[in-house]
Amino acid sequence: MTTDAHERLTASVRRLIDATIRTEVESDVIAAATDKIEAATALLSEVLTPGSFGVQAAPDGRPIALGNVVIGQRNPVAPPLSIDHSEDGTVHTEFELGAAYEGPPGHVHGGVCALILDHVLGATAHQPGKPAVTGTLTLRYLRGTRLGLPLRAQAHVDHVEGTKTFALGSITDSDGVTVEAEGIFIHPRNTAD
Amino acid sequence: MTTDAHERLTASVRRLIDATIRTEVESDVIAAATDKIEAATALLSEVLTPGSFGVQAAPDGRPIALGNVVIGQRNPVAPPLSIDHSEDGTVHTEFELGAAYEGPPGHVHGGVCALILDHVLGATAHQPGKPAVTGTLTLRYLRGTRLGLPLRAQAHVDHVEGTKTFALGSITDSDGVTVEAEGIFIHPRNTAD
Repeated sequence: MTTDAHERLTASVRRLIDATIRTEVESDVIAAATDKIEAATALLSEVLTPGSFGVQAAPDGRPIALGNVVIGQRNPVAPPLSIDHSEDGTVHTEFELGAAYEGPPGHVHGGVCALILDHVLGATAHQPGKPAVTGTLTLRYLRGTRLGLPLRAQAHVDHVEGTKTFALGSITDSDGVTVEAEGIFIHPRNTAD
Repeated sequence: MTTDAHERLTASVRRLIDATIRTEVESDVIAAATDKIEAATALLSEVLTPGSFGVQAAPDGRPIALGNVVIGQRNPVAPPLSIDHSEDGTVHTEFELGAAYEGPPGHVHGGVCALILDHVLGATAHQPGKPAVTGTLTLRYLRGTRLGLPLRAQAHVDHVEGTKTFALGSITDSDGVTVEAEGIFIHPRNTAD
């Protein structure tokens, strides 16, 4: 489940992650902050689900991946992306990435671009209750993707062969494409894995 | 810089991220934890570096990417990986991923595997003070990669052509390879980007 309390908590942890990377305060202040974080973790750890979050049922019965590292509204590591599906089968998402996603100085890590494109291309193949898994993914990096600027990722289905969906997509900034991707996503025949 | 205080802080935030995803406590307890996190963030935010962490100089002058999303010791989003370089040019890293990196239930997100392989393959091309950027990266997913189990990623240089390093690598668990990768990494001729 996610509630207003969960949303405030997760947003709060995202700000903490950013401050943890960027802080320049002295060691005694860092130690005081750490004590407060430990106390918060102790409160939250009074009851923990075993293992990872997985996919749980929302109140309306829909499966919901709140712990997902890309879209999970309860995962502070997730930006989180909100994926829009258009009626023509294309998907897109708009986002901005901060200090937590850095690779080359001032730029998004190339692997974070891969993470986002894997998810967005895969979303073209997902069907309710029938997720697709990645078969192959190929990325072409045209230029660096900057931190702190509005970005967009989009994808569409090129064609479908049996259980395989062939998808194309890219990340763009205001000057155009930074990374292109193509991927094959597979609906496992027998399992939800 | 990283100090013992920074290391304790970052480790503490990593535990908080995990508890944030997995907690099942009631809303009033979540709200109390959130208050403590806000107080910690306020302390750390008294002095912040502008923008992202970038690459700063260690006391011995070496450039050090403490904010990096894969290896950054001050980035709570980073597992963080510790990359070992062998004399024969191969690189490897051993790690385990928890709830924060989930895609399919109980499994590492395919895009997180891409993020790790991008970094590990790229590390075969890096030279001190002369990082390489990703040109292309291709991933083949053989089967799911489990959360909570010991994993290893390794890579080596297949060949070099001018400024391009062609690298191969994989992620393995105790049963063998889960994801294979090949990538071309480029040393920009004129810039550090």
